[in-house]
Amino acid sequence: MTRALPAHLTGSRRVPRPARTLCRLVAGALTTTGLAASAAEPPQPAGRTMADVLAASVPGDWRVPDPAHTLYLEFDEGRVIIELAPAFAPEHATNVLRLARAGYYDGLAIVRVQDNFVVQWGGGEGRSLPAGARATLPPEFTVSVTPSLPFTALPDADGYAPQVGFSAGFPAAREPSTGQAWLAHCYAMVGAGRDNPVESGNGAELYVVIGHAPRQLDRNIALVGRVLAGMELLAALPRGPAPMGFHQEPSRQVPIRRVRVAADLPEPERTRLEVLRTDTATFTALVEARRNRRDEWYKRPAQYIDLCNVPIPVRSR
Amino acid sequence: MTRALPAHLTGSRRVPRPARTLCRLVAGALTTTGLAASAAEPPQPAGRTMADVLAASVPGDWRVPDPAHTLYLEFDEGRVIIELAPAFAPEHATNVLRLARAGYYDGLAIVRVQDNFVVQWGGGEGRSLPAGARATLPPEFTVSVTPSLPFTALPDADGYAPQVGFSAGFPAAREPSTGQAWLAHCYAMVGAGRDNPVESGNGAELYVVIGHAPRQLDRNIALVGRVLAGMELLAALPRGPAPMGFHQEPSRQVPIRRVRVAADLPEPERTRLEVLRTDTATFTALVEARRNRRDEWYKRPAQYIDLCNVPIPVRSR
Repeated sequence: MTRALPAHLTGSRRVPRPARTLCRLVAGALTTTGLAASAAEPPQPAGRTMADVLAASVPGDWRVPDPAHTLYLEFDEGRVIIELAPAFAPEHATNVLRLARAGYYDGLAIVRVQDNFVVQWGGGEGRSLPAGARATLPPEFTVSVTPSLPFTALPDADGYAPQVGFSAGFPAAREPSTGQAWLAHCYAMVGAGRDNPVESGNGAELYVVIGHAPRQLDRNIALVGRVLAGMELLAALPRGPAPMGFHQEPSRQVPIRRVRVAADLPEPERTRLEVLRTDTATFTALVEARRNRRDEWYKRPAQYIDLCNVPIPVRSR
Repeated sequence: MTRALPAHLTGSRRVPRPARTLCRLVAGALTTTGLAASAAEPPQPAGRTMADVLAASVPGDWRVPDPAHTLYLEFDEGRVIIELAPAFAPEHATNVLRLARAGYYDGLAIVRVQDNFVVQWGGGEGRSLPAGARATLPPEFTVSVTPSLPFTALPDADGYAPQVGFSAGFPAAREPSTGQAWLAHCYAMVGAGRDNPVESGNGAELYVVIGHAPRQLDRNIALVGRVLAGMELLAALPRGPAPMGFHQEPSRQVPIRRVRVAADLPEPERTRLEVLRTDTATFTALVEARRNRRDEWYKRPAQYIDLCNVPIPVRSR
């Protein structure tokens, strides 16, 4: 017997890890009792699976993350790769890059692993911020929508925001009435821890979402990027004690050997990844393939997808 | 520096683990563009935090899970406790109990750990089903709504179902137009793996959700219960290789020493837990405390909560 659930992230084995992905803007089918797809759902085209969509993708559907905004976190167990999001948190991105280049994170550790919530690192007690790094930053919790800020909306409605979708590869949300946009706390998103004052975050302590999307954090804290590779390492770390998952014993804290900016490494030391673009017909087809699963296993397509269930495929190049 | 995110599961330290919880039925505030709370959101009462709500709970707000429908999975690292849901999957529950009592699961292993999706065990190759256990079962993917099936609706709308809420402590959904109800694939929910035929699941292979809720599985497979304790053990297991997370090497598979029904153990060997009821004013208050966080850290209450972000507190008694 080998009964199995279908693969969550199916498709090309070239896709190295569970990832999340994009969308197209169509108003979701709404009723007065909920968001579920209604009878008004348009007929679906003969279905393609995500594997079909990825197999038919062309080179232009993929992008190489900017090495100047890509971080490598080196652990004994492997490399975790983070793509920063300067369009949403420019001052945080700048500070994080400064901290990384000054070696601030080297030798720090993952000090918090809270089940179904986040891992968190940094907080070097008594470690001085390097010259040029700022101790406080403006609260980059939202940005103004501008013509230069890309946004591909999901066809489905969302509970936490008037509109959700993808912006340059990141899950995001918008509020037309205020003209604001922000990143969404989906699995693998990276944020900058802060204390109660909104300007107290500076990127010296970062966290990664490892559980069901804590969307209540949206617009309350600055998200600064997304993990492109290595989530399976972070998500499998032993949990710390309740309620907040802080490991008090140093032996339980997982050391970060060093953090480097990809652009600062010679080409052979870089990890050659590419990420599916979120503003293409291929991505739109991928979203539809995930909204309505077409393989034989599924008997009832959902006709809906939650923002944080949309994969953004990443593959080796 | 000890910048921190607030605790996801705050409140009493007596709550032994991140859990999920219940709701009350009020129509969510809907707009034509989404589910986000609108200006019509009623004024909120002076806020209580979840910690406040739990501290004010009375003994009658808590229930002891039925030992006849509680499983203990014993690992070298500890005990995982599952509460079965016979109201939603009676034949699966009966079969799982038979398999457990016959020792079918003893010595099997967790063979699959797919990041941001599920862990899965069972599938003893060549292991015969014990006498009395069935090889196939009816597809208990939904049940008919009856007066005896409790349901406390969430005040917020949902994308995957016309109505969501809690039924006897489990996250659930309903469709008034068809009179059907079903359990929802939230974090920690337990289901019975199946092959393509809908009747091919029998409980010999079970899975647990360890990532962002894969709600697309709802109504496609039988959920049979929920993990009440021990998620931090399952969720931290090393991930198997992409795409589906099956560990091919036996050394990577985590053995299940034995599975027992709580009722079959002498009282001193049972774990004394209680679970917050989901049909009380206390639970309604807890949901509101989570819909709109009241502590100083949060600057913008969400005015919404996703079904799978509602904790159902579990504590030692």
